[in-house]
Amino acid sequence: MKICIINPNTTAAFTTRLLQSARAIAAPGTDVIAVQPGIGAASIESHAEEALGALGVMQMVAEREKTGVDAYVIACFGDTGLHQAREMARGPVVGMTEAALQAASLVAHRFSIVTLPPRTRAHSLRVLQDTGLSHRCTVRAVEVPVLDLEDDVAASGPIIEAEARLAIEQDHAEAIILGCAGLSDLVEPLSRKLGMPVIDGVMVGLKFAEGLVAAGLRTSKRSTYDYPPAGFSLPKLS
Amino acid sequence: MKICIINPNTTAAFTTRLLQSARAIAAPGTDVIAVQPGIGAASIESHAEEALGALGVMQMVAEREKTGVDAYVIACFGDTGLHQAREMARGPVVGMTEAALQAASLVAHRFSIVTLPPRTRAHSLRVLQDTGLSHRCTVRAVEVPVLDLEDDVAASGPIIEAEARLAIEQDHAEAIILGCAGLSDLVEPLSRKLGMPVIDGVMVGLKFAEGLVAAGLRTSKRSTYDYPPAGFSLPKLS
Amino acid sequence: MKICIINPNTTAAFTTRLLQSARAIAAPGTDVIAVQPGIGAASIESHAEEALGALGVMQMVAEREKTGVDAYVIACFGDTGLHQAREMARGPVVGMTEAALQAASLVAHRFSIVTLPPRTRAHSLRVLQDTGLSHRCTVRAVEVPVLDLEDDVAASGPIIEAEARLAIEQDHAEAIILGCAGLSDLVEPLSRKLGMPVIDGVMVGLKFAEGLVAAGLRTSKRSTYDYPPAGFSLPKLS
Amino acid sequence: MKICIINPNTTAAFTTRLLQSARAIAAPGTDVIAVQPGIGAASIESHAEEALGALGVMQMVAEREKTGVDAYVIACFGDTGLHQAREMARGPVVGMTEAALQAASLVAHRFSIVTLPPRTRAHSLRVLQDTGLSHRCTVRAVEVPVLDLEDDVAASGPIIEAEARLAIEQDHAEAIILGCAGLSDLVEPLSRKLGMPVIDGVMVGLKFAEGLVAAGLRTSKRSTYDYPPAGFSLPKLS
Amino acid sequence: MKICIINPNTTAAFTTRLLQSARAIAAPGTDVIAVQPGIGAASIESHAEEALGALGVMQMVAEREKTGVDAYVIACFGDTGLHQAREMARGPVVGMTEAALQAASLVAHRFSIVTLPPRTRAHSLRVLQDTGLSHRCTVRAVEVPVLDLEDDVAASGPIIEAEARLAIEQDHAEAIILGCAGLSDLVEPLSRKLGMPVIDGVMVGLKFAEGLVAAGLRTSKRSTYDYPPAGFSLPKLS
Amino acid sequence: MKICIINPNTTAAFTTRLLQSARAIAAPGTDVIAVQPGIGAASIESHAEEALGALGVMQMVAEREKTGVDAYVIACFGDTGLHQAREMARGPVVGMTEAALQAASLVAHRFSIVTLPPRTRAHSLRVLQDTGLSHRCTVRAVEVPVLDLEDDVAASGPIIEAEARLAIEQDHAEAIILGCAGLSDLVEPLSRKLGMPVIDGVMVGLKFAEGLVAAGLRTSKRSTYDYPPAGFSLPKLS
Repeated sequence: MKICIINPNTTAAFTTRLLQSARAIAAPGTDVIAVQPGIGAASIESHAEEALGALGVMQMVAEREKTGVDAYVIACFGDTGLHQAREMARGPVVGMTEAALQAASLVAHRFSIVTLPPRTRAHSLRVLQDTGLSHRCTVRAVEVPVLDLEDDVAASGPIIEAEARLAIEQDHAEAIILGCAGLSDLVEPLSRKLGMPVIDGVMVGLKFAEGLVAAGLRTSKRSTYDYPPAGFSLPKLS
Repeated sequence: MKICIINPNTTAAFTTRLLQSARAIAAPGTDVIAVQPGIGAASIESHAEEALGALGVMQMVAEREKTGVDAYVIACFGDTGLHQAREMARGPVVGMTEAALQAASLVAHRFSIVTLPPRTRAHSLRVLQDTGLSHRCTVRAVEVPVLDLEDDVAASGPIIEAEARLAIEQDHAEAIILGCAGLSDLVEPLSRKLGMPVIDGVMVGLKFAEGLVAAGLRTSKRSTYDYPPAGFSLPKLS
Repeated sequence: MKICIINPNTTAAFTTRLLQSARAIAAPGTDVIAVQPGIGAASIESHAEEALGALGVMQMVAEREKTGVDAYVIACFGDTGLHQAREMARGPVVGMTEAALQAASLVAHRFSIVTLPPRTRAHSLRVLQDTGLSHRCTVRAVEVPVLDLEDDVAASGPIIEAEARLAIEQDHAEAIILGCAGLSDLVEPLSRKLGMPVIDGVMVGLKFAEGLVAAGLRTSKRSTYDYPPAGFSLPKLS
Repeated sequence: MKICIINPNTTAAFTTRLLQSARAIAAPGTDVIAVQPGIGAASIESHAEEALGALGVMQMVAEREKTGVDAYVIACFGDTGLHQAREMARGPVVGMTEAALQAASLVAHRFSIVTLPPRTRAHSLRVLQDTGLSHRCTVRAVEVPVLDLEDDVAASGPIIEAEARLAIEQDHAEAIILGCAGLSDLVEPLSRKLGMPVIDGVMVGLKFAEGLVAAGLRTSKRSTYDYPPAGFSLPKLS
Repeated sequence: MKICIINPNTTAAFTTRLLQSARAIAAPGTDVIAVQPGIGAASIESHAEEALGALGVMQMVAEREKTGVDAYVIACFGDTGLHQAREMARGPVVGMTEAALQAASLVAHRFSIVTLPPRTRAHSLRVLQDTGLSHRCTVRAVEVPVLDLEDDVAASGPIIEAEARLAIEQDHAEAIILGCAGLSDLVEPLSRKLGMPVIDGVMVGLKFAEGLVAAGLRTSKRSTYDYPPAGFSLPKLS
Repeated sequence: MKICIINPNTTAAFTTRLLQSARAIAAPGTDVIAVQPGIGAASIESHAEEALGALGVMQMVAEREKTGVDAYVIACFGDTGLHQAREMARGPVVGMTEAALQAASLVAHRFSIVTLPPRTRAHSLRVLQDTGLSHRCTVRAVEVPVLDLEDDVAASGPIIEAEARLAIEQDHAEAIILGCAGLSDLVEPLSRKLGMPVIDGVMVGLKFAEGLVAAGLRTSKRSTYDYPPAGFSLPKLS
């Protein structure tokens, strides 16, 4: 089984780190690859950057479909280009945000997203509405730019932890979802400190994608996620 | 006051027709222009085409912002690129779908969208969720390809009318929203036949945009719709 | 085009002030008038006063329908008598509350109502439910009696501003809706201080009403808003 | 204990019939009275008539408060004047619609309202939203004018029954709510024919009102349902 | 009329106290009895204990059905075994939580539950969702073990009162629901101190059950609450 | 990794069949076991049987916890005893219904449950509400007794297929969830006939459970799913 993690931004450091974590938990026999676009945004902190990222996602899926990928994981909080990827892929496409929310709902009654930066709260709320979990989850955001996580995730740890503790006290959170693909290194220390599940959507997204493939499921081509209409072609970006 | 209608697809016939209708109802002193992208999709009937359209919308807004446009209307059902346009524009950006829904809610207690083709039902549902009007509106779709409307809207009239009549009988619709920017020629005949409001979102979108500008309102730059982060730049498509 | 602003309370000072503001932003060719009932409540701060106001609204619409008004704007937060007016009028009837909420949703992702006095929170919540925007809007109230606004709106400015700042910090508001028809003088100073859209529902209600008329829309007479049944007649109040 | 049934319309035949049924099920020691307004609408089938009815309700509560009524039941589907009555009364005020919905939710998992005439569907939906039971209840309407029930309820029986059977088959209804105060004579025969609970809101409203009083509960005067502000006075109708 | 209060836990002190309060407010002619299981949990503060309690409820209903009980009241916050009891009983079964919520909604616009201990918040939320009243009610919890209420309810008074005051200030509560069957002694003093309705679900549950029976209503045996399938039999616990 | 499939009913044929299917798709290194209670219901088609099943689930989890199971899958539609199991287990507990819904939401925009028998519709609706997916899923039921599936699943195939086709036509379903643990043999033939994903919750539940364990996640012991309070002990059934 071959699963492709798609990083919709152009920052290679994130891609490398994700691939490493993913391979550590993939099942025997699962071949994990990870890709990123050549042109796009270095990080995705706005709808405008999401649009660029979606185009990158589409191009990466279009290329990989030729080579036989079984499933994809979108590794950006907000699930950039998710619906587009579903239209273009035969196999399942799992967004890290929806996977994190679903995993959280399986191990906790209520939970909170701690995302960054604050202007992306709307992106989390969009996925919450699509997954229907607004009644069990709150969204909190911290003032940390995504690219600060490129070199030194640990520096953001205390800020994230403080916000998570507020979620526990004020929102009755029983699990914490890390609202950025660049935060995976915090899973272990934060989980230990808080004494509750801390969830990285890329990792559970990978495992859920594996599970869907093993269960013989592919993206439904009935109506909504049918392949793009005849005549559709991807432009070249420069 | 200058208002720009943005057609996110590349079909010039739609743009021309929209401009004509819009100028007929614009207030004295409102200068209406209409634009379309050079590269993109001929019609937008999938999420993949929406992503192309969003990029076109962003480029058109970026260009027009330099020349002093006061507000924009997105003329594609599903409001392609709406959130991106709001980030890039100073003035208000109004989607034809949200405007149609709001107008319908002001003249009727319950109403229905008749859109096309069926695979785009998800796009209507997305806007319904964002506007919060799911409790007052149903979505119906007919098997008509968008480009069939380019030359001969009238041919689709009976199909749309039949579906609208089902909406009235089964969903208790008291107004009908035309779910495509290419259907504006049906407003008058259909409204007469059905004896109830039939709504074209581009026209009410134009008037609402005019209204927001007259009332001194611009897109809030606080958080969600702030300008894209420093470093963001639009790629060239080819 | 003739648009009638209906003040459901008997305080003439509010009517005069609204008419002045409305004429300043009406389109060329729009004739704006404003009326108020002779008998009723001096301000509407309870359901009991709303019932009186609704009767006044009905009488004013009944009279104006004979003289050819194209649309009405209800100028009281809570949209007193809105559904009754829709049944009695041929043209559109727009409530200031619903218009404010719709306008806010077009220029901001999340927003808050700052209304007065606190006991009327339920009236705001009712319109929020009807418009479906509860997921994007919070309601806050300040302890200011409506009639304090008759002579000196400015005195309430700091109290409203303080509450609006709480809405921004705690509710992530990106626009503020003024929850009373008597607060329109605060739009400009508050908008400047807060750096975000501040919305007066009467002004956007007027513009939306203009827009509906220009787009050829009238109140649907199908079912819910059909004219009152034969035999209905308005009583005289004394 | 004294409980007052308020018929918001002027049709005395309904009042008499309700009083008779109510006395038959009142607890020993409960003194039931029933009143109707002198001026108003003969039946309430529109928002306009609801506004008249609300004024009547207010006047009747104002008068009865002086004489020591312990609770009120609003005997009109849609609960005409409910919020106004709560502001004016010390004791509880129970609407027949909300009581019917609550009773239905206690004896069945899903249920349907069969109301009349169709234009009043919006009134049922309003109470459904307030009570929060939309997820368990559907609204159906039949083309019967309310005043047809004045002399001969039985004639409407087959039409109501047919619609109730559709509710059972298509909406999975497990109980039926009669959507008009004039239908109480159908409870027994319809319940027998359908083999499931058929609910008349006035009767359960009376019993719930009795229960609230026995449990020592009165309308909360904190905020929303506080007495109308000083200076409020009811006009005279003629 | 015979009504049976079911205490799903094994603590006899609660059963005795409830019976006493219930008899004080029952209508003349209502015979109230109260039962508790021999085997089960001393208090119900977890889903595990709820499952034990549900089995006890089923056994008690099975026994009482043979002797002609007209209705049941479940006297445990969370309404332990409610759906099971409805399947097994001919007459109505009323949960104290749903009854409290409905009563609150009849005397106040917004209200709050103060329950205990905090881990049972999920149980309150479950009933809130079933009753549909989430938009009018918040849930608050205090760190008091249920069995502390066995001997000395008064000691918990100040803690409950403090939390209720927070509900009034922060959640705009206009009535308070006591979230445990062991708190009924607090109704009177707390209601006096807070100046608003304080609701004990067992008492209103009893009165609503009386009302349903008087109105001739029984549990619908159509589909959901039909008797358990042939072959079902209760095990013996030891 | 050891995963235990819990069949809450006493029918061994189901357990054996599930174990076989599960082992076929488990990852290398996953040890799957399957258990069923000695005392309880032969199938679970009512709330009463659910209560018996829950007790069985609790006993099986209590026993297996001593022997080091990493995760559990509840193999009964409606997720019998899910919350109880979560309180008693250290590792994750996944219900087949919630897993099926989540998997469906990852491969299709809208989907339908086809369950049996009709009286269990309420059980499906309960899980839909907990997972929040009501806006994307409908529930349909067929008149087939669960135990008919023990010997001959194939006989039910055409009935299920016919209902699934109605879901596709009328509800716009793009995937079908099989609403019973005994239907897994239909996945392959039905999926082929319908040309869309057909989902067996036990299989995806197993894979999701595997994924949660691989990602290091356990049931949160914070508040809701904490271990049952001290003093809790399971009764013996006979």
